[in-house]
Amino acid sequence: MGLTRREFSRLGALGAMAGFVPDLRASAQGSERKVGYCVIGLGRIADHFMRGVKQGSTSQITGLVSGHRDKAERIAAQYGVPTSSIYSYEDMDRMRENKSIDAVYVALPNSMHAEYTIRSAKAGKHVLCEKPMCVSVSEAREMIAACKEANVKLMIAYRLHYEPTTLKAIKMIQDGLLGKIQAIDSANGFNIAPGEWRSTKKLGGGGPLMDVGIYSLNATRYLTGEEPEKFTAVASTIDRDGRFDTTEENTAWTMRFPSGVLASCNTTYGAAMPGYYKVFGSKGWLEVDSFGYQNLRLRANYTPEGKNSSATTLDETNPEPDPKQFERQADHFTQCILQNKTPKTPGEEGLRDMQHIQSIYRAAGISFD
Amino acid sequence: MGLTRREFSRLGALGAMAGFVPDLRASAQGSERKVGYCVIGLGRIADHFMRGVKQGSTSQITGLVSGHRDKAERIAAQYGVPTSSIYSYEDMDRMRENKSIDAVYVALPNSMHAEYTIRSAKAGKHVLCEKPMCVSVSEAREMIAACKEANVKLMIAYRLHYEPTTLKAIKMIQDGLLGKIQAIDSANGFNIAPGEWRSTKKLGGGGPLMDVGIYSLNATRYLTGEEPEKFTAVASTIDRDGRFDTTEENTAWTMRFPSGVLASCNTTYGAAMPGYYKVFGSKGWLEVDSFGYQNLRLRANYTPEGKNSSATTLDETNPEPDPKQFERQADHFTQCILQNKTPKTPGEEGLRDMQHIQSIYRAAGISFD
Repeated sequence: MGLTRREFSRLGALGAMAGFVPDLRASAQGSERKVGYCVIGLGRIADHFMRGVKQGSTSQITGLVSGHRDKAERIAAQYGVPTSSIYSYEDMDRMRENKSIDAVYVALPNSMHAEYTIRSAKAGKHVLCEKPMCVSVSEAREMIAACKEANVKLMIAYRLHYEPTTLKAIKMIQDGLLGKIQAIDSANGFNIAPGEWRSTKKLGGGGPLMDVGIYSLNATRYLTGEEPEKFTAVASTIDRDGRFDTTEENTAWTMRFPSGVLASCNTTYGAAMPGYYKVFGSKGWLEVDSFGYQNLRLRANYTPEGKNSSATTLDETNPEPDPKQFERQADHFTQCILQNKTPKTPGEEGLRDMQHIQSIYRAAGISFD
Repeated sequence: MGLTRREFSRLGALGAMAGFVPDLRASAQGSERKVGYCVIGLGRIADHFMRGVKQGSTSQITGLVSGHRDKAERIAAQYGVPTSSIYSYEDMDRMRENKSIDAVYVALPNSMHAEYTIRSAKAGKHVLCEKPMCVSVSEAREMIAACKEANVKLMIAYRLHYEPTTLKAIKMIQDGLLGKIQAIDSANGFNIAPGEWRSTKKLGGGGPLMDVGIYSLNATRYLTGEEPEKFTAVASTIDRDGRFDTTEENTAWTMRFPSGVLASCNTTYGAAMPGYYKVFGSKGWLEVDSFGYQNLRLRANYTPEGKNSSATTLDETNPEPDPKQFERQADHFTQCILQNKTPKTPGEEGLRDMQHIQSIYRAAGISFD
């Protein structure tokens, strides 16, 4: 059906390698045309995503959902999206009929993720949803169930799971270069401007833990390969200037993992807090600076062969400029759609973070559903 | 009385500046000869201290207490200490009669600090005691009471309170360069060798929190100028290799300060964990790498005048080599003795850390007196 033999073989080989049988129907769909994404919510991160898709070769922007028709038309022209594929929030369910749209990218405020994921699933579209997945554990379960029911894939946009520096850090740990891991430190935050939806309970679903602290939480999980089992936390609000009327400004927390690894984390919407993590092992340490869209820097110092061997040091920065992370992420979901694979960061990955966020909030004495 | 008029005036001026009336008797004592220290315990840190004293101009080593006479005699020869000023742990109380000894430096394992501080005070000597001050809150109180009773000064050897990079970091915060502080991250630890007294409850008094975690705890206090009021903690032991039969291997903890500042900390005896702290404020951040004896590096990035001004960046390392920190510390206590001033890090500073360590241990579910 338009797949060249070579393309077909490649897809088959990839599928077999990963232990999956390629879905011929899906593969056929994705053959001559690229996998089409409809972007729901045209804010800052959507811009990164669309540019990432555009610079890649496997996906394309084929629909837009926005409350601002003018803005949507401008962007549609930029990405070659027909005006007939521009939807409002009210009529987006009509995209069911739009064959050029295979998947949606949900880039709305957190509290809207569940509704638009579920509506998209019901419209028969695969869903790539930004993190945090939603604003409660029950919503996360509903999203997973809805996608399962509709037989569409659900991936949470944990872009760093597809980023080479991050993957290298994980591999170094898995390969035992740092010895036995004992502890992880991580923080991520920024000084939020007044009026941002992120610092409202209604749209953000919580404070900085939801949008930026989640990077530290998720990092401790991909670095250890374990799920935290004990949580302690404290929260505070220092600035009484209207930004934090419905959420906390700061949260510090600790987590204990089954192996005994301890993590100590911090997040804020009130201070310049460049993202980082440090991993401490019996043979050495590594540190990655920034959870940002580019320039992730990995430094490490470890002594491979006991005390008498000399230390290995590492200091390297991923040179790929933004929006490469978004390109990689879209490519992954596209391959999952084409090959009928489960994404590396499925809904269940987002659900786990929501469960842990709930545990952290409860430890801090803050209610969270 | 041997003080030149110029020296006297200088001391008087310093005393007046600090709001203290110089103690003429003490000043007179310290005039022609340097203030004399008897070092109790001749381990690694004592070596740094003695070299620090030697390179300074205000103090000298005038006595030694050791269980190893040979070692003590070798060191005595090195520092010009008469063999008559070498004591054993049993007969050290005789130093009361030794006029060349003004003060002692207690550099023993933690659990011995209280006994030897109190015995030294009873022998009429001022006491400079290593941190942690002791191994329980009640011991700390007894040490303070004993020194008060004996009318001798007690200083805890928090050497970083006298270290220029640390003082600069504190001043930058106090001057408001980082804006309103929201959060602090800190960690400190190392992978301890088998057989070290530090990882035994009997001599260390606890796990890594006692000897290395205390740096992070103390840093959060000198950086904020506040006392933490809420604590959460988790502890774990991963390595079952005999090193941690009586104490925990790892502790992660959070603290909330009255202003709302949150601290997130980690300590270990099982991993390479270079000491550091990061301070996050509304206008920027600073970071100091290492709690070590030299090469403290201060980096900072802050935007002084709101969003439209450009960021100021800082990256500087204190060039003073070891044992300069020990020289500065000894000089401070010597000046306190000469001028009858209260040390900047008196017994009460150590007591506060013991109280907070107790709070952290209790939060982790570990009993601590």
